[in-house]
Amino acid sequence: MILTVTLNTALDVTYRVPALVPHAGHRVTDHAERPGGKGVNVARVLAALGHDTVVTGFAGGPTGDRLRALLAPVPRLTDALVTVGATTRRTLAVVDAAAGDTTQFNEAGTAVTPEEWAAFRARYAELLPGAAAVALCGSLPPGIHVGAYAELIRTARSAGVPVLLDTGGEPLRRGIAARPDLVKPNADELAGLTGSRDPRRATQDARRRGAHAVVGSLGPDGLLAATPDGLWKATPPAPVHGNPTGAGDSAVAALLAGLVTGAPWPDRLARAAALSAATVAAPVAGEYDPTVYADLLPRIRVTEETA
Amino acid sequence: MILTVTLNTALDVTYRVPALVPHAGHRVTDHAERPGGKGVNVARVLAALGHDTVVTGFAGGPTGDRLRALLAPVPRLTDALVTVGATTRRTLAVVDAAAGDTTQFNEAGTAVTPEEWAAFRARYAELLPGAAAVALCGSLPPGIHVGAYAELIRTARSAGVPVLLDTGGEPLRRGIAARPDLVKPNADELAGLTGSRDPRRATQDARRRGAHAVVGSLGPDGLLAATPDGLWKATPPAPVHGNPTGAGDSAVAALLAGLVTGAPWPDRLARAAALSAATVAAPVAGEYDPTVYADLLPRIRVTEETA
Repeated sequence: MILTVTLNTALDVTYRVPALVPHAGHRVTDHAERPGGKGVNVARVLAALGHDTVVTGFAGGPTGDRLRALLAPVPRLTDALVTVGATTRRTLAVVDAAAGDTTQFNEAGTAVTPEEWAAFRARYAELLPGAAAVALCGSLPPGIHVGAYAELIRTARSAGVPVLLDTGGEPLRRGIAARPDLVKPNADELAGLTGSRDPRRATQDARRRGAHAVVGSLGPDGLLAATPDGLWKATPPAPVHGNPTGAGDSAVAALLAGLVTGAPWPDRLARAAALSAATVAAPVAGEYDPTVYADLLPRIRVTEETA
Repeated sequence: MILTVTLNTALDVTYRVPALVPHAGHRVTDHAERPGGKGVNVARVLAALGHDTVVTGFAGGPTGDRLRALLAPVPRLTDALVTVGATTRRTLAVVDAAAGDTTQFNEAGTAVTPEEWAAFRARYAELLPGAAAVALCGSLPPGIHVGAYAELIRTARSAGVPVLLDTGGEPLRRGIAARPDLVKPNADELAGLTGSRDPRRATQDARRRGAHAVVGSLGPDGLLAATPDGLWKATPPAPVHGNPTGAGDSAVAALLAGLVTGAPWPDRLARAAALSAATVAAPVAGEYDPTVYADLLPRIRVTEETA
């Protein structure tokens, strides 16, 4: 199985309104809830691709109960979340039906106690021996020390389990120094880490900081990977229109699957770029369109770049 | 005790953001929950004024549980809500801290089954004999027939309990024909009922449709009452700045208290206008500022108008 860790899970709520008008009243015409947080999204995509996945992290309160109830029926996905006292946060996406875009409101995560963090580390240590790979995803909730991902990477490496890190800011800076197998920053996270807005320079600089491989996700420009086998670029045939929410999580799912199978880098990157674009194209945020995925996969252009 | 009925209860959520920017992402800096729905607001104000109150209507699901947990510690307020299968809706107010105003999102109410409506009517019939007055407040959820308030007014009248109706649209039109003791429409509801934007004409017209008395709430212009004792106007000394959410519910609370004590109309109207303005002045939506109330009460100007 593949293990994904989400320390800052969320219940993702979507409100659809005919048109968003600041300072006015709105009748919500459609209202949906999905289990959320980056690692949860990654696990759902992996499960849809046919991989057995286990989800861990924290969940609590009525929102946490709802999140777990929504995960329960997902085939090939096992809930190993640690129950905490604090209520799991919500995120709210208000979709403006007229403009076709989204206004996002994210509640702050609720604090985790030292006892709950210890309970999580014990659960993580139990799960690792059964994992073919582990992904550490998203922001850290209050109460978790900024070096937490570095600690979890060292534990995974000691257990001989390949580890992918997808976060930003100081948790990324600390984590990368603990030598994860793969990190997947986006353009902003790369710039924050390296100070460079040049993707080629930033990706290679990030790799020198300790990661075995770095895959930068560059939005419509596709992926740029600095790997032991060289520097690779994967580009979709044309820009895909839609909702970019979850596109990075789908890329992480494909990269994890590649890490497990040991597929060659060009193959891994083509799958990650196609799955990411197929997620942008799907009508529901965070889902991918399997037809678009199958159509795009042979048309992703993967080129080796000079370092 | 005073009974308030809220068939379409809500959990009122407030998100505070530094500034609302459509189509951008926002970190919610402050997040609060309050029990909501018009009749619930009225009961909370009555309880704060020292009246024993009982709240009935519907509540269900985790949101309903949360609403009841928030009502439980309120002194002088008893929860007699009927538990239903559907989850109670939320309303969301996004407060823009820079602009100082609010963007409102209201989820649709969830459908009530015929069995749940029958259970409510039984509960209502049990509660009425102990009530000094009853208020029927707010919109009807899906599954409740449009003549529901007319039915509940006839039941109250048969039990000899004075009844106040605060709603709009067709439920108001049908309800007023069942001869409630008092209706409290706002300017829009008056115009919808009578076709007139002239408050004096509309208030008197509304009274001719069956209500014993009509109190129109006219925002910063105060209140206009068509009563058996004549036509009265109550005006605050100066416009009050703040959040008008809940101002109408506070007026209803004061009018209900007046209905119970049988105070003269000028006194009832002064209290209702002062409490309404003190609600606008309070920093939290739906609360009233007792100091502003005490200060304003002797300064409300009540005049008898010629019909």
